[in-house]
Amino acid sequence: MRGTILYGPRDVRFEECDVPRLIKPTDAIIRISATCVCGSDLWPYRGISPVSEPTPMGHEYCGIVEETGSEVRTIKPGQFVIGSFFVSDNTCPHCRAGYQSSCEHRESVGGAQAPLLRLPFADGTLVTTPNVPSDDLIPSLLALSDVMGTGWFAAVAANVKPGKPVAVVGDGAVGLLGVLSAKQMGAERIIAMSRHESRQKLAREFGATDIVTERGDEGVARIKELTNGIGADSVLECVGTQESMMQAIRSTRPGGSVGYVGVPHGVELNGEELFFSHVHLHGGPAPVRRFLPELIDLVWKGKINPGKVFDLTLPLDQVAEGYRAMDERRAIKTLLRP
Amino acid sequence: MRGTILYGPRDVRFEECDVPRLIKPTDAIIRISATCVCGSDLWPYRGISPVSEPTPMGHEYCGIVEETGSEVRTIKPGQFVIGSFFVSDNTCPHCRAGYQSSCEHRESVGGAQAPLLRLPFADGTLVTTPNVPSDDLIPSLLALSDVMGTGWFAAVAANVKPGKPVAVVGDGAVGLLGVLSAKQMGAERIIAMSRHESRQKLAREFGATDIVTERGDEGVARIKELTNGIGADSVLECVGTQESMMQAIRSTRPGGSVGYVGVPHGVELNGEELFFSHVHLHGGPAPVRRFLPELIDLVWKGKINPGKVFDLTLPLDQVAEGYRAMDERRAIKTLLRP
Repeated sequence: MRGTILYGPRDVRFEECDVPRLIKPTDAIIRISATCVCGSDLWPYRGISPVSEPTPMGHEYCGIVEETGSEVRTIKPGQFVIGSFFVSDNTCPHCRAGYQSSCEHRESVGGAQAPLLRLPFADGTLVTTPNVPSDDLIPSLLALSDVMGTGWFAAVAANVKPGKPVAVVGDGAVGLLGVLSAKQMGAERIIAMSRHESRQKLAREFGATDIVTERGDEGVARIKELTNGIGADSVLECVGTQESMMQAIRSTRPGGSVGYVGVPHGVELNGEELFFSHVHLHGGPAPVRRFLPELIDLVWKGKINPGKVFDLTLPLDQVAEGYRAMDERRAIKTLLRP
Repeated sequence: MRGTILYGPRDVRFEECDVPRLIKPTDAIIRISATCVCGSDLWPYRGISPVSEPTPMGHEYCGIVEETGSEVRTIKPGQFVIGSFFVSDNTCPHCRAGYQSSCEHRESVGGAQAPLLRLPFADGTLVTTPNVPSDDLIPSLLALSDVMGTGWFAAVAANVKPGKPVAVVGDGAVGLLGVLSAKQMGAERIIAMSRHESRQKLAREFGATDIVTERGDEGVARIKELTNGIGADSVLECVGTQESMMQAIRSTRPGGSVGYVGVPHGVELNGEELFFSHVHLHGGPAPVRRFLPELIDLVWKGKINPGKVFDLTLPLDQVAEGYRAMDERRAIKTLLRP
């Protein structure tokens, strides 16, 4: 089969590679119905995170179970499944506490931008849908694998409450789905920070009531202005830079909460500023597995439509163009169909 | 009258100074029944925080209302009152959210190591006791003004829950009262990190079930060992150094909470480590005013005895010896009686 391999900055190839096979009795092989390019794939693509060797790409996936190992109990061939970008056993103390992305058996998923994928700990990692979904549901179900689960976690970590003002820093797919999550959780005023028209439009469609284009001190001032001088109760940080993190902390009211899900790149927090800010800080790699049953249900019932973040769909063999389009900001997020 | 003035490193003097008078109609003057030396007073005393001019010292106090301004409504001369180290109006949005130490009218209290003290925003700052207390209750009531309120906030911020394991970093008065707070909130296993025998003893008296003397990686390993390899659900950080902060974060289980109340001195948090730790982080200057009614009630009913942290009592005019004893670790905390 052919899969997606990153060789170095902006050198992504769709080329012949080994067909994945069951290795352990707890593994499953799934046939990918759809996969996509993640904002975090752009870090190595852009050369910001180093690539030391040719690397199979892709960690977002949904599809049909092809084959299961002898110890897999809950997942059967023919079922449609979704899993997170981290493998989890779903039985260790961290999993039971709802932090499957800190599972004692955590492994990163890689190689999902291909027709077939091996998943370790299939019982703990994969969640089935009620039936094999119709084609129009596939984008929204795929989004649950990472960006929607991550935006949802940002809103949970930021303690979003009905009627309380929310601000979202970052207008990538995760930030936009953070807006959708906040709306779903009952927030009334949702302030999206965005400078890109197409993203502002989608943010409004997902529930944003206000758009702030300013950044830094001006952005903070604008959010204070929109919240009676107080700051937002909940701020979702969906970028991972020093600037975005400080934007989030400084936009939050004392006693409010920052939920941060952007993987930090070179972020250092000054203890004294954090102390006097009086904010709650929580985040990390989203424990998507925790939220999958609930989110599948919401998609299945048509209550949320996170698949709208995919504004470009390509056949999988055009994956290189999918990366380029996102790198050049021509696309928010690229969906790939094998 | 004579009051306590810090001139520079280890140069604290009890000397003639102005008698405080009402300045604004919302002020009150109180006659101090007892005051004390705070761990944070030792930062400037030791020259770690600079002292640019002679500074009136003391921010912990309780006593009898002597005089009130014309707009003071809830506090009357003759009443016994306690207040926090921060003045608050108790009506602004931050106060109403329970973060009185971020009050829009916040002011630091200073000059409490004296017979008389002026308090701005008396209605918002001071809380009365049911009656004038008997002498034996004074130390515990005084402790509420800062160290007990701060230890309590650390436990609240660390989300202490009945039956869940707690670790406390720091064996000063705040850390010890963090132990007492955790016990009061129903924690069963309480691990105190301490290397000093007298403090270990008091920690056990307050409810600590385990003492860990190791620090750094060994301290973390020991706490993991005591919590089935998982880490504590709640960790109270009561020091404010880089080492103690990392000790706290690394001792917490994924999804657990760090409540930090040690004023950070030179602390920098690495974003990536914090992200992957999956901890909740909350803290800051304790909103003592929020907790005063409940804590006064607990002391009044004899349910808690935070006054035990005072292991040295001196007449106020020997305040310099009170500082020395704490600086040299001969005393945990010095109570001063005018």
